[in-house]
Amino acid sequence: MIADRFTALVRSLPATVPFVGPETQERQRGRPFRARIGANENGFGPSPKAVAAMAEAAALAWRYGDPENFEVKRAIADHLGVAPGNVAVGEGIDGLLGLAVRLMVEPGDAVVSSLGAYPTFNFHVAGFGGRLVTLPYRDDREDIERLPDAAAREDAKLLYVANPDNPMGTWWSAEAIARLIRAVPASTVLCLDEAYGEFAPDGTLAPIDVTVPNLLRFRTFSKAYGLAGARIAYAVGEASLIAAFDKVRNHFGVNRVAQAAALAALGDTEHLAYVRGAVAAARERIASIAAAQGLEALPSATNFVAIDCGRDGAYARAVLQNLIARDVFVRMPGVAPLDRCIRVGCGPAAELDIFEAAFADALAAARG
Amino acid sequence: MIADRFTALVRSLPATVPFVGPETQERQRGRPFRARIGANENGFGPSPKAVAAMAEAAALAWRYGDPENFEVKRAIADHLGVAPGNVAVGEGIDGLLGLAVRLMVEPGDAVVSSLGAYPTFNFHVAGFGGRLVTLPYRDDREDIERLPDAAAREDAKLLYVANPDNPMGTWWSAEAIARLIRAVPASTVLCLDEAYGEFAPDGTLAPIDVTVPNLLRFRTFSKAYGLAGARIAYAVGEASLIAAFDKVRNHFGVNRVAQAAALAALGDTEHLAYVRGAVAAARERIASIAAAQGLEALPSATNFVAIDCGRDGAYARAVLQNLIARDVFVRMPGVAPLDRCIRVGCGPAAELDIFEAAFADALAAARG
Repeated sequence: MIADRFTALVRSLPATVPFVGPETQERQRGRPFRARIGANENGFGPSPKAVAAMAEAAALAWRYGDPENFEVKRAIADHLGVAPGNVAVGEGIDGLLGLAVRLMVEPGDAVVSSLGAYPTFNFHVAGFGGRLVTLPYRDDREDIERLPDAAAREDAKLLYVANPDNPMGTWWSAEAIARLIRAVPASTVLCLDEAYGEFAPDGTLAPIDVTVPNLLRFRTFSKAYGLAGARIAYAVGEASLIAAFDKVRNHFGVNRVAQAAALAALGDTEHLAYVRGAVAAARERIASIAAAQGLEALPSATNFVAIDCGRDGAYARAVLQNLIARDVFVRMPGVAPLDRCIRVGCGPAAELDIFEAAFADALAAARG
Repeated sequence: MIADRFTALVRSLPATVPFVGPETQERQRGRPFRARIGANENGFGPSPKAVAAMAEAAALAWRYGDPENFEVKRAIADHLGVAPGNVAVGEGIDGLLGLAVRLMVEPGDAVVSSLGAYPTFNFHVAGFGGRLVTLPYRDDREDIERLPDAAAREDAKLLYVANPDNPMGTWWSAEAIARLIRAVPASTVLCLDEAYGEFAPDGTLAPIDVTVPNLLRFRTFSKAYGLAGARIAYAVGEASLIAAFDKVRNHFGVNRVAQAAALAALGDTEHLAYVRGAVAAARERIASIAAAQGLEALPSATNFVAIDCGRDGAYARAVLQNLIARDVFVRMPGVAPLDRCIRVGCGPAAELDIFEAAFADALAAARG
């Protein structure tokens, strides 16, 4: 039986997936969503320069992308004021987190995260046999005061923290994150997921210091740069830690068209400023929509807003299902007490109009 | 020390990479290649419909691709006469081979391949701690008569065979491959790499039978479809074997623009026919160029031709270096006796013109 020939670890893994995509839901529902504001995608889209770069690169898609991602790494390094050797480029933060877990985690090794934090990271930890230890959020933020102690106690290989946070949208200051970085045990690599960093207020992202030997920062072109479908992101860290990715990564794995898009996107600071402004306005709008229903929106440093539905998880899930039934794609945190919220993406005005109209009905139906 | 915290396996891995890309060589040389015919890319390019599909999809690159690859899987399934559940889509055959190894191979498990066969497969085997056992090629073909016995003797988890073969371009008939499939031990998964299958003569690809429980066939949009840079390929096999990929793959890993390209490319049978014709003509041309130098080209069922330089590996390497010095990017097999050959890609006529002129000089310089 071939089933007996899978690794022991694979045999123990469930067949679950981290996220069901909106397309799957559309197929199950038999009709499309009218508003796609559930996957923290950036509906304001990529830079027109990135779109043009993709169209131009398409004709040369017969060529493999540069396996060294040389130009992209150089541009990122210049952007951040580090050396190219401090940058690893990969197929989205998901891909890079998978590699980070693979590099460090053997079956039984502890990995620390927060209860309700990024499921795909947990998927990778499970996929390499890691033992996930979680601390609860505190006041809807990851408990960065206590997480380092947990990492020390568990002799954790990795500690995952997102700043700003997903799924709550909350954030810590650069000073608090700098304290976290200092507090993490020397034998634990802090995986600092800054996917939403470009949306955050000034003073949120800690200064980059690539001399810290146990820190990997993950950033992406998926969010503020509007290139989620392109699958290109990067890790920044101390050079020897970054070099380890080369031992295990799929060297030719990054799409050539995505490389061109990332380069163009990084260069278009004007479009980035436009997106940041549009997202900030959408955050306000979502908060107003919530307030009009007597609900509170959590302050957000991301391109989504968690709306506290004011009751328990079952109630918020009913609201969510009612929104989906009204063709609005949204998601929500998976565990209590975070799951009293639904998570609404900062889409363009037309989609928020649809959300606004559906939300009142969805709440009424859930109450009712 | 963080270096002590990597897994034991990772600590044991060398920092080598499977292939140095042409861009790296261009940077080292300080000037571009004039002919890019070394990576088995398809210089005749993707279908214009695929290029148009990419340009159109670019504006929606802010959306994640469908993590189920539903449309692509359905189109492939229809194309092959199997069910979508028999198809796994991934980031190139390289990515899918990595997943196949991860699913099956624990440290110390045996994996059988041929000496000089695909280095990236070996990279993955090493990356998961597998013990690679190789048999020599026989008459420049993978020794499919003896490989099943080796798999049985070693209790191999995987057996890798490419048909048509890379790097030699040789092939076995469908009947011979069908015998191989029957001869592989029931406890070994045959990884049948058919990346170059579309270039092969009729009667090369064995009929697809997804009831075979221990067979994975790998096909790609990188070669005949001219989409190497798009990173999209598929594995075909028995449904429960295919389903296992979902346990470990990067679910959102396939580029959305690549999904659109693959769909369009698969539908453009006319362009595929054009590419096949152009490649066949280029094969003849390369054989003629070799013959004009008194050298033999191996018959090829792929989009490259191995030219037997007629002496040993050191000589062929000198020829290769002389070609590279003349701005012609080519590669060659890594081990004897295959390394008496250089491998020349079936590029467009202008690139073969450059190769032709450079080849005479390169041979003369190597002869000294």
